[in-house]
Amino acid sequence: MDRERLLHLRNKEDVVKLPALERVAVCGGTHGNELSGVYLVRERLKKRRKSEVMEPVTVVTVMSNPRAVHRCVRYTETDLNRCFTDAMLSFSVSDQTPFEIIRAQELNSQLGPKGSDQATDLICDLHNTTANMGLCLITYSDCDWICLHICKHLQREMATIPVRYIHYDFPPAEAYSLDSVGKHGFAMEIGPQPHGLIRSNIFTAMQEAVQLMLDWVRLFNSGSEFEGGWVDVYSLVKNIDYPRDPQTHIITAAVHPDLQDRDFCLLHPGDAMFLSFSGESVRYKGKEPLYPFFINESSYYEKGVALFLARRRRVEIPSIQSSRT
Amino acid sequence: MDRERLLHLRNKEDVVKLPALERVAVCGGTHGNELSGVYLVRERLKKRRKSEVMEPVTVVTVMSNPRAVHRCVRYTETDLNRCFTDAMLSFSVSDQTPFEIIRAQELNSQLGPKGSDQATDLICDLHNTTANMGLCLITYSDCDWICLHICKHLQREMATIPVRYIHYDFPPAEAYSLDSVGKHGFAMEIGPQPHGLIRSNIFTAMQEAVQLMLDWVRLFNSGSEFEGGWVDVYSLVKNIDYPRDPQTHIITAAVHPDLQDRDFCLLHPGDAMFLSFSGESVRYKGKEPLYPFFINESSYYEKGVALFLARRRRVEIPSIQSSRT
Repeated sequence: MDRERLLHLRNKEDVVKLPALERVAVCGGTHGNELSGVYLVRERLKKRRKSEVMEPVTVVTVMSNPRAVHRCVRYTETDLNRCFTDAMLSFSVSDQTPFEIIRAQELNSQLGPKGSDQATDLICDLHNTTANMGLCLITYSDCDWICLHICKHLQREMATIPVRYIHYDFPPAEAYSLDSVGKHGFAMEIGPQPHGLIRSNIFTAMQEAVQLMLDWVRLFNSGSEFEGGWVDVYSLVKNIDYPRDPQTHIITAAVHPDLQDRDFCLLHPGDAMFLSFSGESVRYKGKEPLYPFFINESSYYEKGVALFLARRRRVEIPSIQSSRT
Repeated sequence: MDRERLLHLRNKEDVVKLPALERVAVCGGTHGNELSGVYLVRERLKKRRKSEVMEPVTVVTVMSNPRAVHRCVRYTETDLNRCFTDAMLSFSVSDQTPFEIIRAQELNSQLGPKGSDQATDLICDLHNTTANMGLCLITYSDCDWICLHICKHLQREMATIPVRYIHYDFPPAEAYSLDSVGKHGFAMEIGPQPHGLIRSNIFTAMQEAVQLMLDWVRLFNSGSEFEGGWVDVYSLVKNIDYPRDPQTHIITAAVHPDLQDRDFCLLHPGDAMFLSFSGESVRYKGKEPLYPFFINESSYYEKGVALFLARRRRVEIPSIQSSRT
């Protein structure tokens, strides 16, 4: 047998069969001032009914936090996208319970329950960042072949924006974001865009990415086989806070101009990280070069995060096909 | 006489004598989420006492809206920088009065009273914008030689950022912003910077501009003569709102990618202004080419403003000198 035919046979044998993705949710407004997702969801809800049957997939469109959207703020009482841990989803509600905890439990009923057989097959939760991150899929798994294949598809098809895959290594019970309610799920994070406004190019990129993802799901459900390959995975290692005044906790430095906007450019030991308001540079003291991301995200000031650092590695993904065929 | 000497003599005769600027106020945090001014004022207050005597000028540093700064929001109840009209400054305060109206009256007592002989000679109020405006001095006069000379000085001295002069033609009683409380005053507006975060390059530019302004005031008070010349003045003509749904009032389009970030680039009749979320372009229907600014400023969504349009003209400014000398 010639080499091509041999390879073909080997591929055929290695194809991983996975259940079809019958219910997909597209969510926006989980943070009410991240406007690309808010307007994308509004447009979808205007054009179609809430539950849209496009054989062979049912797509549900959800405005996650309408109260925060109405006020154009990230959240009203507590960050909704930190409310999907097992502990918070089973929290006993009282009159004092913050709105977002109640809303998380509602969303868990609608799209989950998290960890159950009834859970939505795939949740795509739309976000924006002030950081220069391009388009990122943020997940809790580095071996979710569905999410990795969707990432590979977007990387191949999207011309105007870099696409990357980020992995937060948390056990499911502690996974805190809306997308963790699905059997598969990711936050689709696009930037840079200031919160509270909409930039046409970022909106268009998000629209294109959501369409490509749904096209991919339809092909997958229809029995198409997707070839394996390699995807770069950025795994979160740690975060770094701004330098702060020890008494007041007020920040004393901004992200250094040499680091600002350089998300996913390798940060080496000794590189400048911050420039204090009085003019001194603060350098990266780690021993290992790492990849920074979420550099100077405005909503992370309150969380004590100036940037995240990740390790990058290439992950081999198998060929996959829906087991329905 | 040779030509040079003749010109010199003519200049000498034409020098306009103006009172010295004995009290100058540098204000920040008038909008609590515009962080360059917030941190610049914090740094100044840390290093020096609130009232700083640097012969021959007294500089007062003011955090205008500490409550909004603390919450990192533009304002808490109403926009402070719309509260300095004569009507609002004489408003009878009750238990129901919004915090910012009370605070405006306090600031008017401290730095004014507006329109009186006791008013601060020069107020510089520090602001940020999400628009790509570089550094702008925004004033209520196109013949305030002090403000125009400071603008000319910044234009000459600042290398990293374009400096422009904007004129809002409102009578003093209706001038609504903090800087209108001074005998001379301007908002120093720098962008692009998302609200709620600080970019080192924008902070550094603001720091440099404030320092250059104070240097200029010191030279002026010391008797230096400043040569006349020409300054381009952008006079506000009108504003344009986003296309909106007539029922819900929700926006249906974003600023067009061809216009986004092109503040102060002439907009011609027929040029694209908006791109609707369903993909249609909306064009500029005016008959006169005008200069757009504050393009897609996030805090103006609620005010119904997508951009301002200005006419540009060259204004001749005379040589000036302090009358104290």
